[in-house]
Amino acid sequence: MLILGIDPGTAITGFGLVSDEGGGLKCVAMGCIRTPAHTPLPDRLVTIYEKLSAVISRYRPDSVAIEQLFFNTNATSALAVGHARGVALLACCQAGVRVSEYTPLQVKLAVAGYGKADKKQMQSMVRLLLGLEEEPRPDDVADALAIAICHINTAPYHAKLSRNE
Amino acid sequence: MLILGIDPGTAITGFGLVSDEGGGLKCVAMGCIRTPAHTPLPDRLVTIYEKLSAVISRYRPDSVAIEQLFFNTNATSALAVGHARGVALLACCQAGVRVSEYTPLQVKLAVAGYGKADKKQMQSMVRLLLGLEEEPRPDDVADALAIAICHINTAPYHAKLSRNE
Repeated sequence: MLILGIDPGTAITGFGLVSDEGGGLKCVAMGCIRTPAHTPLPDRLVTIYEKLSAVISRYRPDSVAIEQLFFNTNATSALAVGHARGVALLACCQAGVRVSEYTPLQVKLAVAGYGKADKKQMQSMVRLLLGLEEEPRPDDVADALAIAICHINTAPYHAKLSRNE
Repeated sequence: MLILGIDPGTAITGFGLVSDEGGGLKCVAMGCIRTPAHTPLPDRLVTIYEKLSAVISRYRPDSVAIEQLFFNTNATSALAVGHARGVALLACCQAGVRVSEYTPLQVKLAVAGYGKADKKQMQSMVRLLLGLEEEPRPDDVADALAIAICHINTAPYHAKLSRNE
């Protein structure tokens, strides 16, 4: 199973590909799509859409995992993330890849085993779980990898739940 | 000059094409893109993106006008509009069409001459200015036409302003 985690944003969109073939978790690729400051929003969205589409078409992930946004942030940042998230979801759906959403709490529980884990703890856990030499940077990449790990660790559980419904 | 006004939303995206050739304003086309309730968000975004792209490629507008969102709405609705707005801006930019943004106040002033005009007054003015037999429905279509009219009425003024800067 190869999972693409995405942490969308108009300035930086992080992505991470995690596989669980052969037992342990493995980071297949990671990176971030940066768009230059002062670039008009429509151009930024084209960059995010095209680069994400290229990642999907290159790695052909089995599934995409993305954060289900919290609504206690302010409306301005929700709108900005919404723009980037919209084109990310579009790229996934056009490529025929299924998207699963996880709340920040689900991601923290699945990766660190602790719902109040802070950024530093999450980065350490991502590094340990994927056997990386260093903690992934910037935060957006670590977050994207964490969401992918969350999907791999909880998908079998969700599948079992839905069979028993 | 042919202007495409867009009022983006995940459930309904209104659009309206207004031309000002030959003196008065004319509604060249209008309509809305509806996505079925309970459809997953990524599929809805694909529908909006594909149908808007088809409208742009069919009518080849000179410019697109879209509402600059207010941030005193709540974060949940800002995020939802952000998704739809993101794929709308993507479709415009990919087609090489320039996008201008207007605040609700600018749209009201340009269409009704009164910044506190209500929905009903705006619909009547849109009908009058475009010589339509009936008021355009639903609201999303009327709003899209109003934004296109706002662009046509204020673009020469903005162009003059930027020349004098």
